[in-house]
Amino acid sequence: MAFQLHPRLAKGCHALGKLGICRVLLKDNALFPWFILVPETEDDITEFHHLSEEDASDVMRSVRRISHFIDDHYRPDKINIGMLGNQVPQLHVHVIGRFESDPAWPAGVWSCAEKQPYAAARVAQVSRLIQPWLDVTDNPDDAGGLEF
Amino acid sequence: MAFQLHPRLAKGCHALGKLGICRVLLKDNALFPWFILVPETEDDITEFHHLSEEDASDVMRSVRRISHFIDDHYRPDKINIGMLGNQVPQLHVHVIGRFESDPAWPAGVWSCAEKQPYAAARVAQVSRLIQPWLDVTDNPDDAGGLEF
Repeated sequence: MAFQLHPRLAKGCHALGKLGICRVLLKDNALFPWFILVPETEDDITEFHHLSEEDASDVMRSVRRISHFIDDHYRPDKINIGMLGNQVPQLHVHVIGRFESDPAWPAGVWSCAEKQPYAAARVAQVSRLIQPWLDVTDNPDDAGGLEF
Repeated sequence: MAFQLHPRLAKGCHALGKLGICRVLLKDNALFPWFILVPETEDDITEFHHLSEEDASDVMRSVRRISHFIDDHYRPDKINIGMLGNQVPQLHVHVIGRFESDPAWPAGVWSCAEKQPYAAARVAQVSRLIQPWLDVTDNPDDAGGLEF
């Protein structure tokens, strides 16, 4: 069965593009620079250790690349990486820039009830900034777009 | 400078052994099967993307191995993996078996105030169970022990 993004991820995030086997999403919460990588595996994989070794390496290479992007563009105090999936079973990786001044610090963002949806112009700006770090697609607005 | 385990990790965990470049710890909270991997890098590395590619692969290979151990021995509903470091800067990876019946579900364990220290006999039992999954050392009680 072809890959389908979990409806909760589709609803709560903005699609930014592709990187390796992952779809790259921006969580719709402007309080944190919060990116989510979703490996487009055809199987219904929920756990990192159920990925093939090759796919797991691909995912972690992308996690490192997105971490570098966050460092370069946001200069956070810390980067948090998490694979939880207690609420959305589809395997996905959170990569989040954290600041000592952010509303969840020093706790994990997952326990933070505060939320601030992005303005459309800011999403477009983040999307523009991150494109050089992602794979080239024919349409950056379409995270499932064809790759050249 | 030689590797030194952060005092908060040393104080809050039981040493189980070594796996690749990581020290393997059991978090002293019997409410969750909660393991922590600490790469013994000589530098003061705080971020996953600052590890060399080789060291990062080694760490994630161990994360997958510990996840298999947790699956086999605890049969959890989900495994949570996290690298936060907002409170303890030394790079470390949480690998935690989660149950729908556990006191933090479905939130991350990091926001859970509940804690139950292990009985010594239970730590010895977990240590015995996990040894076949770890590197052989001359003394399993000494996480920094010499490797053959």
